[in-house]
Amino acid sequence: MSRPRPLRGSVVLLSGGMDSATCVALATRSSRPVHALTILYGQRHAREVRSSRALAARFGVARHTIVRLPLAPLLDSALTRPGRRLPAGRSRSGSIPSTYVPARNTILLAVALAYAESHRLAEIHIGANAVDYSGYPDCRPPFLRAFSRLARVGTKQGVSGGPAVRVVAPLLRLSKAAIVRRGDRLGVPWALTWSCYAGGNRPCGRCDACRLRARGFREAGSTDPLAGRRSGRAAS
Amino acid sequence: MSRPRPLRGSVVLLSGGMDSATCVALATRSSRPVHALTILYGQRHAREVRSSRALAARFGVARHTIVRLPLAPLLDSALTRPGRRLPAGRSRSGSIPSTYVPARNTILLAVALAYAESHRLAEIHIGANAVDYSGYPDCRPPFLRAFSRLARVGTKQGVSGGPAVRVVAPLLRLSKAAIVRRGDRLGVPWALTWSCYAGGNRPCGRCDACRLRARGFREAGSTDPLAGRRSGRAAS
Repeated sequence: MSRPRPLRGSVVLLSGGMDSATCVALATRSSRPVHALTILYGQRHAREVRSSRALAARFGVARHTIVRLPLAPLLDSALTRPGRRLPAGRSRSGSIPSTYVPARNTILLAVALAYAESHRLAEIHIGANAVDYSGYPDCRPPFLRAFSRLARVGTKQGVSGGPAVRVVAPLLRLSKAAIVRRGDRLGVPWALTWSCYAGGNRPCGRCDACRLRARGFREAGSTDPLAGRRSGRAAS
Repeated sequence: MSRPRPLRGSVVLLSGGMDSATCVALATRSSRPVHALTILYGQRHAREVRSSRALAARFGVARHTIVRLPLAPLLDSALTRPGRRLPAGRSRSGSIPSTYVPARNTILLAVALAYAESHRLAEIHIGANAVDYSGYPDCRPPFLRAFSRLARVGTKQGVSGGPAVRVVAPLLRLSKAAIVRRGDRLGVPWALTWSCYAGGNRPCGRCDACRLRARGFREAGSTDPLAGRRSGRAAS
């Protein structure tokens, strides 16, 4: 069996949020080439596309690809169902909120794995975070380890003797405040990022993503350039 | 944390080929409801859609969903690139042919997992086969075990105390001849199935899929209703 060509560089899953923006900033310092992959899986709004485009341009990635997966009719989630109300913050400690999208990161990583193997890229970077997060199971270390194992045994690259595509989650064990501090040092343009789950032109300030973001900036002693543009109630 | 409602029934990944047709036939005898999911990932032709529709109707599945994923531009494979020639049979023993689609079954199972969890279905059935097959790594037992583990740790269902969605591959260790015999007993309408990788109206008889199919029928002592319609050379 012939050995495949070695892999190099990375593909970053770029949603346009704070975490993936910080991921791109980190990746451009540690690997080359850096590709960015924005995958729309049927979430309610496409505000993230604008952010991801602006971030990909700002960090000069070698290639930015946007993929639209028409999965909304299949998925049971408040993020993809037009009729479902978004929860204001988390309902109960320890519970998984209705914004959970079934198998979301499995789908994102699966497409990124296909992309990485097709483009001979060594790593998939994902901004998963298991500290200040919404409690989604597919953001936790056991999930990422299980996916790495899958990439080893389920790809031509992995079974052909070379190293398999690696999954890298550089923010996994950082608090949101630590991510803000890290991003500040790297010059992440927070004004270009987008976190809010709602589809408006301004962050709602009430959803789980807005609250986590606000707490991160507050605890880091930093200022969110989007916070001033918020309409309605402030995040608590 | 509240326990989710129990799961029941299955979703079958239905490509329209012999193996997935046999899978649907088996599933309709063992679980209820049975849903079918046909995922087009950018393969060259959509002949499979016709077959999968006809098979879903014949077996009376509760719901058949066809999803088109616009992944062809991302994937490096002879099956998804219009310009690439399909190999006639396998190039070398043990090698993975150019019809390999990077992370294909990872993507198919990821979407099926999202579907199963959204519809509260207990099992994903996949016609993966690791005996008379093309050597793709994502058809082998270690891959399927790794995906089952991923489903346990990466879904709300899996981490919430209930049983996780299970991956079932009933044909995994059967020869193609054994699949033909099993299908014959179950009344699988082979005339409705489609195996050929080429996009024509008749099976080419030369590609890997056509050869495996022909050998299966020959060794089972059965007759392929599509074989008579073949134009050009017979499969060896």
